[in-house]
Amino acid sequence: MSSIQAITNQVLELEKLLNSSRARLDLIEHNSNASIQWQHNTEENADIFFLIMMANTIFLMQGGFAFLEAGSVRSKNTTNILIKNLLDASTAATIVSGAVAERCDFVAYLVYSSCITGFIYPVLTHWAWSSDGWLAVGFTDGPIEITYSDFAGSGIVHCAGGVAAFVAAAVMGPRIGRFDKETGNPVDIKGHSVPFAALGGFILLFGFLAFNGSSHGAISSAGDGVAVATAVKNTVLGGTGGAFLTLTLNRLKWIGDSTWSFLTTLNGCLAGMVAVCASCNQITTYGAFIIGIIGGVMYMITTWTILKLKVDDPLDATAVHFGGGVWGVIACALFSTEFGVLYHWDKRSALQLAWQLAGLSAIITWTATLSFVMFYTLKKVSLLRVSFEFEMKGLDIPKHGEPAYPAESYGHGWGETGDALGSMVEKLRNKSPTINTKTSGSPEVDSLNKLNSSVSTINTMVQNGSTETVPEKQEQTKI
Amino acid sequence: MSSIQAITNQVLELEKLLNSSRARLDLIEHNSNASIQWQHNTEENADIFFLIMMANTIFLMQGGFAFLEAGSVRSKNTTNILIKNLLDASTAATIVSGAVAERCDFVAYLVYSSCITGFIYPVLTHWAWSSDGWLAVGFTDGPIEITYSDFAGSGIVHCAGGVAAFVAAAVMGPRIGRFDKETGNPVDIKGHSVPFAALGGFILLFGFLAFNGSSHGAISSAGDGVAVATAVKNTVLGGTGGAFLTLTLNRLKWIGDSTWSFLTTLNGCLAGMVAVCASCNQITTYGAFIIGIIGGVMYMITTWTILKLKVDDPLDATAVHFGGGVWGVIACALFSTEFGVLYHWDKRSALQLAWQLAGLSAIITWTATLSFVMFYTLKKVSLLRVSFEFEMKGLDIPKHGEPAYPAESYGHGWGETGDALGSMVEKLRNKSPTINTKTSGSPEVDSLNKLNSSVSTINTMVQNGSTETVPEKQEQTKI
Amino acid sequence: MSSIQAITNQVLELEKLLNSSRARLDLIEHNSNASIQWQHNTEENADIFFLIMMANTIFLMQGGFAFLEAGSVRSKNTTNILIKNLLDASTAATIVSGAVAERCDFVAYLVYSSCITGFIYPVLTHWAWSSDGWLAVGFTDGPIEITYSDFAGSGIVHCAGGVAAFVAAAVMGPRIGRFDKETGNPVDIKGHSVPFAALGGFILLFGFLAFNGSSHGAISSAGDGVAVATAVKNTVLGGTGGAFLTLTLNRLKWIGDSTWSFLTTLNGCLAGMVAVCASCNQITTYGAFIIGIIGGVMYMITTWTILKLKVDDPLDATAVHFGGGVWGVIACALFSTEFGVLYHWDKRSALQLAWQLAGLSAIITWTATLSFVMFYTLKKVSLLRVSFEFEMKGLDIPKHGEPAYPAESYGHGWGETGDALGSMVEKLRNKSPTINTKTSGSPEVDSLNKLNSSVSTINTMVQNGSTETVPEKQEQTKI
Repeated sequence: MSSIQAITNQVLELEKLLNSSRARLDLIEHNSNASIQWQHNTEENADIFFLIMMANTIFLMQGGFAFLEAGSVRSKNTTNILIKNLLDASTAATIVSGAVAERCDFVAYLVYSSCITGFIYPVLTHWAWSSDGWLAVGFTDGPIEITYSDFAGSGIVHCAGGVAAFVAAAVMGPRIGRFDKETGNPVDIKGHSVPFAALGGFILLFGFLAFNGSSHGAISSAGDGVAVATAVKNTVLGGTGGAFLTLTLNRLKWIGDSTWSFLTTLNGCLAGMVAVCASCNQITTYGAFIIGIIGGVMYMITTWTILKLKVDDPLDATAVHFGGGVWGVIACALFSTEFGVLYHWDKRSALQLAWQLAGLSAIITWTATLSFVMFYTLKKVSLLRVSFEFEMKGLDIPKHGEPAYPAESYGHGWGETGDALGSMVEKLRNKSPTINTKTSGSPEVDSLNKLNSSVSTINTMVQNGSTETVPEKQEQTKI
Repeated sequence: MSSIQAITNQVLELEKLLNSSRARLDLIEHNSNASIQWQHNTEENADIFFLIMMANTIFLMQGGFAFLEAGSVRSKNTTNILIKNLLDASTAATIVSGAVAERCDFVAYLVYSSCITGFIYPVLTHWAWSSDGWLAVGFTDGPIEITYSDFAGSGIVHCAGGVAAFVAAAVMGPRIGRFDKETGNPVDIKGHSVPFAALGGFILLFGFLAFNGSSHGAISSAGDGVAVATAVKNTVLGGTGGAFLTLTLNRLKWIGDSTWSFLTTLNGCLAGMVAVCASCNQITTYGAFIIGIIGGVMYMITTWTILKLKVDDPLDATAVHFGGGVWGVIACALFSTEFGVLYHWDKRSALQLAWQLAGLSAIITWTATLSFVMFYTLKKVSLLRVSFEFEMKGLDIPKHGEPAYPAESYGHGWGETGDALGSMVEKLRNKSPTINTKTSGSPEVDSLNKLNSSVSTINTMVQNGSTETVPEKQEQTKI
Repeated sequence: MSSIQAITNQVLELEKLLNSSRARLDLIEHNSNASIQWQHNTEENADIFFLIMMANTIFLMQGGFAFLEAGSVRSKNTTNILIKNLLDASTAATIVSGAVAERCDFVAYLVYSSCITGFIYPVLTHWAWSSDGWLAVGFTDGPIEITYSDFAGSGIVHCAGGVAAFVAAAVMGPRIGRFDKETGNPVDIKGHSVPFAALGGFILLFGFLAFNGSSHGAISSAGDGVAVATAVKNTVLGGTGGAFLTLTLNRLKWIGDSTWSFLTTLNGCLAGMVAVCASCNQITTYGAFIIGIIGGVMYMITTWTILKLKVDDPLDATAVHFGGGVWGVIACALFSTEFGVLYHWDKRSALQLAWQLAGLSAIITWTATLSFVMFYTLKKVSLLRVSFEFEMKGLDIPKHGEPAYPAESYGHGWGETGDALGSMVEKLRNKSPTINTKTSGSPEVDSLNKLNSSVSTINTMVQNGSTETVPEKQEQTKI
């Protein structure tokens, strides 16, 4: 009996233990469920945080485009290009604003910007990035599934933007004086400020890293971080390749113009980044570098070609975005470690390349056709281009009432060491100006000295003998 | 007995199982506790990371204000406004620096900036954002609890900053020449650089998204991500509404000046963002857009009003921050989906509106009174405003020793295609300059050609016949 | 028997319960393991996200250096300095580009930038930041372990960069005209744009917060967030101390030049931030402020010293980075709450100070020796410095083909209220210009009026009587 008692006790003991364990289990189960809920919340928060930070940075890209374009136009059209970029809501529309700079009517801008942002571009993103878009769905060939691959939009964003930019620039016609009337040779029209163009460029490069990184769309699942980092790293390398190529090529006498050109290098860098957009999540480090290099080549070839076609694209937007973008879509089919022709010389890779080319054709056809209809219509109703007078004299004052650098806001009264314009005026105003001897010896001061001498002589003449030569005008000159 | 033995065995078996389960339980319990600790750490890290990123971005806003203001003043006061913005430590003080630009003494700046940042503004944030501030505590009416609602500071930051800016500008008096002595009509004094103002604007818009997003204060709890994203999205929409309204209104002949004004559009955009600050976490998408539009209207009305009052606010800081801010505090009581009058036409919403108005009155009274005492005292002890000579000639050189654009640092010796000033000087220096024929045909070159002809004629005169006319002055002109 | 039956039932019941509990345990164990895996993934993602955001922001610092340098050189060398900064890949190389600005050959730049980025700097980071670097390994003295402490690189990055900058500037020699030929006194050569220098400064300050914050390297473990926030906060305070000190000191007549200098304040702020780099993760708030203040003093002393040595460092890069950096490495041994001399007056702290000094000596010796060999070799093979003509006339046009502000891209045809240069040209072109009466009363307009009178008189002279004086030159002037 004692053995039964013992067992009973043992069983009771076990029961107690089991019950306490079950109570602990309840608590842990509760905690575990809370943890899973917590994890869901954390994932959601992390993804949103990630996308907000990236979206914020990409928002800055708009400012980048604004200054790249502002620095690349003449000072008389600076406000015009700034307000366009303030209002732009999509990258594709922004690309076009560069190509039609210095001559596009503001109403035409409002129309084309709305059409591109509201219709042309959304259709393309649906094709390629919606789960039921025809390019994204792709096709199957037995076990092989082929789907259009364009991670951060070499085709959808940049090639499309470049096509629209080219069509716009071609329909619009070149700026007055861009091609020599007799020889037809291009005449360089320089932008008014390399520093502003550089500012825009630095911001754009910065924004590009965020743009391509954020194309992964999430940071919360296993491998997300590595994927984003890969995209960012490859974007840097693509840009480096493009910059390196164009810097070097432009320095060569028989290809470029023998100089270390800042703007060409910047555009080459951007073209390289555009080229890796499509594939930066699925290529190797050296693949990205090579794609960037060839992107730089594509940029230089496109620039040369559109000049031969007598199309005037002030920002080289076509060369950067179309040149880099077309190559990027193709490069994805070649360099992708997953399915690229260079890694997998098989039917799958061939079909992928074919589908990428099909996508490219569709993007170009769609964008070119609609852009042509849009810009040609605007031209026919005389809304596309500003008047001859406005183009010659600049858009800022008649269209916006805001000269970028109003003359009356420059200068001061403190003599030699002042503002550029101010001291010019001072010099001309004062009869016996004194040169700051501290800085004498520099060529500028010497030239100012000479100018000074001339001016003070002139002033003396005006006030003394010479005025006798023109006595009848004296009253008028007092104003 | 075999049955007892069987049971005993079974119990032993159970005991073994239970013990192993309990060991597993111990481990899991340990892991679960570690997980909870880990979650706490992760939440803390995420919140700090979030706040650092946002704080970093908001820090950039200071740069935004700096360039918006620098571009909006004349070149002779550019360094002055830049150093003020480098030293500013709160948005409210920065807003004031715009309103008193081009005439405020640097010592006065140090005084008012310290007072606002160290006393006036902290009291306001205590009232509204501390758990024991009287506006935050609010009152109860039966079951209804009313508390002042001002998410990202339409009232606390912007309305207060705008009030201080208005008082400062009014006590300071307008810049010399701002109002016509005879007619009293305002005379436009343009800033020296639209691109710099635009640069500041782009940075400010970018920073605003971070500022309003970060006002949620955390990213780690359930729903935080969505709340932050809502705030950011509504900020974008508020800005869009304000920009759209002012762009359109300024284009109308009977309201604006018939132009597509960049600076008006930018200010309208900022006013729209200011207006949604108070409520951007609790309004709908179209609510934000409507608040932004009315924010733009408030901006235009305020601008018009302060000009009628003969107050000179160079940056329109009062119109953007006071106009947008006042409306924002009221709009919160109207558009909040939680308690807004437009959604809940009940006692609760009426009391909330009343409390918002009470808060607004308190903010305005507090800020206006202290600002008036502060600026009036500074005026009485002659520390407020720079001397007539300094204002006329500019502050950069006497106060800071740093002209923004020193004349002697411009120009080069490479002839026609050079810097603006450089080639002007070259032209004046050389007797027979050559025009770069590449660019002939453009109006600038034509005008330079004509200038050139005049100048070379003058030089010829100076060197030949004319010098005979003024023989007695020859020595002097050689310097 | 019934008792046995009861026990048997009880045991069966227990068994059932135990089995169900074990099934629950299996599930929880599975979830717990998944959680741990999820936590690993989340940590990895968070750290990568953190590093990407910080790296992105630091990338912007390159743009900051670019504009600080571009604004600090003369307009004729602006493009040159921008392209160098576009290509720079390390902070140390960028620091040098400031010190050799306006006279360094582009090929020399490519050489030294590669050497520093590819060899000199990596060796230093290995010494101090690799687990097997000799400075990082340090030594043991009984129980005391001493290891070189340089959190964000006061020594490794800034002191090294400053040493290389000094050596480069010394070997290169001063810019033409920098020191008076007779007296040997320095002649101020002002940069061409305070606003651009300010833009660069704002971006650099912003980037510094990210740089020092990111030096912690992670955000996922317990305490990471607090550590990063501490580093960022102390960086802000270091900068504030440096700015405050230099602002005040420069205002004093017997030390500075009696002005509130923007550029000195900015450099003081940067020197303060450089000084807290080494220790910003392990000092108190007021420690950071004091280190920053002394950093500002070090900056002013170094500036004064290198001028006495007749070394020309256009950007004051040596003073900011060497002055602030040397002090930062020492300050770490003094102010560290963990082992600082000021907190622990013991053997440990003395040894730490000694090791910091040893590290400093090694960094300086290594960098100075290699930099000297490199720059001296470049000088001997005549690749270091541009020709006299290029330096006098500027590098932008011959080296890069891109003047920063091309004259022909300025101006418009809309009369008085136009661009600075444009309206100057207009005035000179038109015989009877009209002054916009709206703005009359301001000194600029008055001076323009006078200029105007002179010019129209001159034009009248040219067209009337005076032309008779120089009839033989008339054809030429028509061009």
